[in-house]
Amino acid sequence: MTSYQNIEEEAVANWHKNGLRVPLFEVDLGQAVYHGNYFHIFELAREAFLRDMGYPYRRFMDQELHLTVVETTCSYRRPLHYDDLIEVHSRVLWWRRRSLAFSQNIYRLEENNEPSLCTRATLNMVCVKFSGKPTTIPDDFTTLLKAQDIQQIEQA
Amino acid sequence: MTSYQNIEEEAVANWHKNGLRVPLFEVDLGQAVYHGNYFHIFELAREAFLRDMGYPYRRFMDQELHLTVVETTCSYRRPLHYDDLIEVHSRVLWWRRRSLAFSQNIYRLEENNEPSLCTRATLNMVCVKFSGKPTTIPDDFTTLLKAQDIQQIEQA
Amino acid sequence: MTSYQNIEEEAVANWHKNGLRVPLFEVDLGQAVYHGNYFHIFELAREAFLRDMGYPYRRFMDQELHLTVVETTCSYRRPLHYDDLIEVHSRVLWWRRRSLAFSQNIYRLEENNEPSLCTRATLNMVCVKFSGKPTTIPDDFTTLLKAQDIQQIEQA
Amino acid sequence: MTSYQNIEEEAVANWHKNGLRVPLFEVDLGQAVYHGNYFHIFELAREAFLRDMGYPYRRFMDQELHLTVVETTCSYRRPLHYDDLIEVHSRVLWWRRRSLAFSQNIYRLEENNEPSLCTRATLNMVCVKFSGKPTTIPDDFTTLLKAQDIQQIEQA
Repeated sequence: MTSYQNIEEEAVANWHKNGLRVPLFEVDLGQAVYHGNYFHIFELAREAFLRDMGYPYRRFMDQELHLTVVETTCSYRRPLHYDDLIEVHSRVLWWRRRSLAFSQNIYRLEENNEPSLCTRATLNMVCVKFSGKPTTIPDDFTTLLKAQDIQQIEQA
Repeated sequence: MTSYQNIEEEAVANWHKNGLRVPLFEVDLGQAVYHGNYFHIFELAREAFLRDMGYPYRRFMDQELHLTVVETTCSYRRPLHYDDLIEVHSRVLWWRRRSLAFSQNIYRLEENNEPSLCTRATLNMVCVKFSGKPTTIPDDFTTLLKAQDIQQIEQA
Repeated sequence: MTSYQNIEEEAVANWHKNGLRVPLFEVDLGQAVYHGNYFHIFELAREAFLRDMGYPYRRFMDQELHLTVVETTCSYRRPLHYDDLIEVHSRVLWWRRRSLAFSQNIYRLEENNEPSLCTRATLNMVCVKFSGKPTTIPDDFTTLLKAQDIQQIEQA
Repeated sequence: MTSYQNIEEEAVANWHKNGLRVPLFEVDLGQAVYHGNYFHIFELAREAFLRDMGYPYRRFMDQELHLTVVETTCSYRRPLHYDDLIEVHSRVLWWRRRSLAFSQNIYRLEENNEPSLCTRATLNMVCVKFSGKPTTIPDDFTTLLKAQDIQQIEQA
């Protein structure tokens, strides 16, 4: 895709970028992606983010941990259609001892070759054991977050 | 289900209520409903809400209209599991000429026979033609909203 | 729904029947239920079948068992659309020590008030432990199958 | 992946191959891909097949055509799990004036670096107009099928 500078008042440097095409099975009878299915697209991008960061999600699961989603906000500005060529931008907004938040934006490459911001989401997650009990995020993961200068929020 | 009085500081009178069991296919490998699939449950409840109100969603579609989702927030307080007996409470929060917002809460009947609030969501929707172009909500629908004393927000 | 006699050369007596409306979220951009999503509808009907039989699926899970699907065939004769009023007919075709097969048909009530057969499926399942290892179907379940005169196939 | 020779008595030459990882959102509470969701994986592979063949599915849709699924059989030999590295092999089995069949197999690369056949499916499709009415498969597509020496079945 082309330049994302000056889009939506936010620096795009340091965002992880993941390109894909919108699958047919995510689209509903209104010809746009079903609102609940955008979370599939966000998930694929977070998987790629974590893998590229050197800490694939499976590594959480190998420790019998999940990052469970506890809050989402999603703004659907422009509907995504079947076969749209999109790029998902993802970053960790902040993290605490047991929780973290992702910011994720979906851009579509329009016919004029310019990207347009279509969907914005924030997902708050808590690290839990397979039992569901909240627990501390693994140290070797927070080390990577610190290395990326991601904001750590102090505990209240 | 039993009494919902004094739950979460909100009067439960005037909420539409729809009971169901959590289907197996909505649950992911973490043993809870996948975060994007709660929107299936909310949709089933809105369908029942509109039908019981005398304006089934199909009536929008027969006029070549959709209520397209433009913003969602969802707070996942307690995970829903397979076969949980739940009750979804739904109401229209406000409406404008071309848009409206739903508030929807999912309660689970716990083993002590008390309901607990598990999931809270707000969904903002815009009335659009099949072409995607925003349009006015049909008069016969807003008449029903007025009859329910649902708050109309003035246009800016 | 009305009479199903003489439909598709099969007696409809002894089939479990489960009525529902086709949810919007199951429909894809072609305006019909997505082919993979018919399995949601079949599952909801099997859940009702097992519950009405006195052996809800949860009882398998409480014993750390699953009936895992190992083979499916599905014939999509007439597409199901959003909000169609349907009736799913389900029965166990045969069972063995560790496996069983379901036959499931979906009928739609047409505008002339006659049902039409839309979808036919067969699902073969194996009883497995949570580990995935095949195991014997619980005795108290096969007792119920015998009481329904469902065909037991001898082991080879 | 490594060699697929001598697997399941079928030549693997001339099969289209598409590699991917199993997404988390396709997996159900039994820790394997939900049986209806394998059709998502098959669809992604057919999309890649058609694109690589020079006739992306969108080109059907631009002509207001769909290849609608009318029959499926699927054999789930070995369950697919989250994050499994898989390769989907796809080919057109036969075609007629208005219909065609796909054969699709999913292999997993096992820890010993050998692929194992996990899932086999056949999907029969009919070319339909957006109205749902069956119609002839476009000539420029059948020309590509002939070029691949795919078997044409004579009309009865």
